[in-house]
Amino acid sequence: MALVVQKYGGSSVADAKSVKRVAKRIAEAKRAGNDVVVVVSAMGDTTDDLLDLAAQISPLPPKREMDILLTAGERISMSLLAMATNNLGIKAKSFTGPQAGVLTDAAYGKARIVDVVPHRIRRTIEKGQVAIVAGFQGVNQKEDDVTTLGRGGSDTTAVALAAGLGADVCEIFTDVDGVFTADPRIVPSARKIHRVTYEEMLELAASGAKVLALRAVEYARRYGVPLHVRSSFSGAPGTLVSGTYGDLIDPNAPDGDEQEEDVMEDPLISGVAHDRSEAKITVTGVPDKPGMAARIFEVVAASGSNIDMIVQNVSAASTGRTDISFTLPEGSGPSALAALRDVKGEVGYENLEFDDQVGKLSLVGAGMKSHPGVSARLFGAVRDAGINIEMISTSEIRISIVTRADSLDEAVRAVHTAFGLDSADGEAVVYAGTGR
Amino acid sequence: MALVVQKYGGSSVADAKSVKRVAKRIAEAKRAGNDVVVVVSAMGDTTDDLLDLAAQISPLPPKREMDILLTAGERISMSLLAMATNNLGIKAKSFTGPQAGVLTDAAYGKARIVDVVPHRIRRTIEKGQVAIVAGFQGVNQKEDDVTTLGRGGSDTTAVALAAGLGADVCEIFTDVDGVFTADPRIVPSARKIHRVTYEEMLELAASGAKVLALRAVEYARRYGVPLHVRSSFSGAPGTLVSGTYGDLIDPNAPDGDEQEEDVMEDPLISGVAHDRSEAKITVTGVPDKPGMAARIFEVVAASGSNIDMIVQNVSAASTGRTDISFTLPEGSGPSALAALRDVKGEVGYENLEFDDQVGKLSLVGAGMKSHPGVSARLFGAVRDAGINIEMISTSEIRISIVTRADSLDEAVRAVHTAFGLDSADGEAVVYAGTGR
Repeated sequence: MALVVQKYGGSSVADAKSVKRVAKRIAEAKRAGNDVVVVVSAMGDTTDDLLDLAAQISPLPPKREMDILLTAGERISMSLLAMATNNLGIKAKSFTGPQAGVLTDAAYGKARIVDVVPHRIRRTIEKGQVAIVAGFQGVNQKEDDVTTLGRGGSDTTAVALAAGLGADVCEIFTDVDGVFTADPRIVPSARKIHRVTYEEMLELAASGAKVLALRAVEYARRYGVPLHVRSSFSGAPGTLVSGTYGDLIDPNAPDGDEQEEDVMEDPLISGVAHDRSEAKITVTGVPDKPGMAARIFEVVAASGSNIDMIVQNVSAASTGRTDISFTLPEGSGPSALAALRDVKGEVGYENLEFDDQVGKLSLVGAGMKSHPGVSARLFGAVRDAGINIEMISTSEIRISIVTRADSLDEAVRAVHTAFGLDSADGEAVVYAGTGR
Repeated sequence: MALVVQKYGGSSVADAKSVKRVAKRIAEAKRAGNDVVVVVSAMGDTTDDLLDLAAQISPLPPKREMDILLTAGERISMSLLAMATNNLGIKAKSFTGPQAGVLTDAAYGKARIVDVVPHRIRRTIEKGQVAIVAGFQGVNQKEDDVTTLGRGGSDTTAVALAAGLGADVCEIFTDVDGVFTADPRIVPSARKIHRVTYEEMLELAASGAKVLALRAVEYARRYGVPLHVRSSFSGAPGTLVSGTYGDLIDPNAPDGDEQEEDVMEDPLISGVAHDRSEAKITVTGVPDKPGMAARIFEVVAASGSNIDMIVQNVSAASTGRTDISFTLPEGSGPSALAALRDVKGEVGYENLEFDDQVGKLSLVGAGMKSHPGVSARLFGAVRDAGINIEMISTSEIRISIVTRADSLDEAVRAVHTAFGLDSADGEAVVYAGTGR
């Protein structure tokens, strides 16, 4: 018998019919002999509707009140899901984030989990009942006020509860079949990845793969919680994210009959991620003096922008000046530019250029550490496709390049093929972003 | 400086515009120098929408889950109202029933308040801030689960908080101008009642006046909380409900400038209430033996019906049998009839008759205690209008009669005129039922 934490996103519980379908899945997992804890997001568009209401009321609502408002969404979905599950003859009780013992700091709107004390959840599963927990929320215990966890909140709730309960697996149910070697909308021959390590999944998530929230993966890695990303529409196994290339456990399999699969050698490459949400800023004619680059990035960071890739040209001996380029989320562009303009005199640069027509491709794989020649093959594939590389950055298990935005899809396809990731049968798969 | 508890019903906060209007009223009361605590219901149709959703999910949802679902409604309205109030420069914080210290028993769906410990509310007003509290909800403290208070819940929350905080007045804002001498839709010349005692208001509420929940009036009487029923659309004073015919305090009047009005003698009659929601059951041919009537009402009570008026004919000497009639809420008819059929053999009655075409008129006034002849004048007025009286029941300050449903309006008008309640100018007023 396993203890399974299942997380269902907003699109999985968009209406009464979907709620009933999810209840069936919960009942199946329970009837297969597992202890089941469920984390659920707000139904479909509920959160957007509540945000609209707030916008009609106040341009700058207090964050505490905003969190009280938004957490109404999970209150609705969790109670309905508990009703639907009870209706199938499985005893189920719903719990808010505070009731589930999800303790956070006081940063309303983007609270961080400081501890999980799931006494009530444990008592519920000890009674043989299913606990259904509101995702995305916790409690600022000092004030006894509800908080929301911000982006990726429900995934994080699920992982944190799984860690706190010592669950065998945390299943992230979504509207895709798992994590793919590339976005199948761009690469129709992309394959589902059966296993991936936390590190690889972190790099994929940070590089644009939307199926799992980066933050949840970080939490899972820290506490060693195996994640199983799978479709809420089919019973097929999805992608296992864990510390090693270990076994994929199917909690719906009969008790004591866990699937065994051969442990594969570390694959060279897990997948190709892409990201079109960044922009590039170039500061030209920066005097090549110590501290100038540092000052530029200090100013940009203070404007609230997260800098991703950085490239600094070798300075021209004739002028003693250099160009510095960096990428950042497109939405941070205006405030970063304004901050840089304020220090133009101090830094003494010549010009600012802003480019939102860039795309980033990232090749991720734990195996590349021990395989020389990966970058050469990547650069070769992109060059053969006639695409120019504008920036390069690397980590131990990732290589990222920046290209023109309109060349990005072609670059992804070329690299996917060059590393032998195309599936033999080119099965058609559906891929879409997931909600919070 | 007064401590004022204000209650706004669902129709007062039906949309963003209404929420802003209510916030303005709150700001006015606060700026006039009062401490202000607000109790708010769910917006407009929210509760009905949530009930619809639940009905799509499960025919018989667990009551605990139903309460979790429904309390999402006040969560939305209270946070929006807090945002709107902050937007006007008045610091306001919202609190759920549990946070406000509204402790209840475990009767989900119709919980009773067992205590109110409003520490957080008190701290909030001590800081000079407005506390906005979710009506209709409390906490089953043993389980730390939210409960709902059932019908009239938000009025009851307001009165209970006012009692717990020792407020100077509890203002019930609604979509009518106050309590009227009769329903102005039936009697256009009905007048607003300026003052009424708890006892009279209890009789009026129990007799069909919908403007205040009976339960809230009972609570107010027990704890001596003055109620002020007034319109959320105008600044005019409404109806003061208190222990005596004392002064009407307007909390929006400048500090130290409380209005003084002459204390009137107890008026003979407060008003004429009517109720079309009851039905009459007649049990014919009941053997005139000790215990038979008791057995009948035992059986009906056990079926969950609340019996209102009872009439037992004198038994015919020739047959030794009698007829027993009683009224009860129309919706309880089927279960009461079924229960009576089950004991037909035991009781030995001849027949059952069910009549849902009855109407009840009630004349209420503390003054009638010391005035003989009130019933004679009432019966005379109804007779002169050519209307037959089918049942009569009286209390110290109320006389109720049952007529045909289609004669009820005319009876109400006749009695209203006979007791001199018609206003001189016959001002047109709008009257409507209020929400929970």
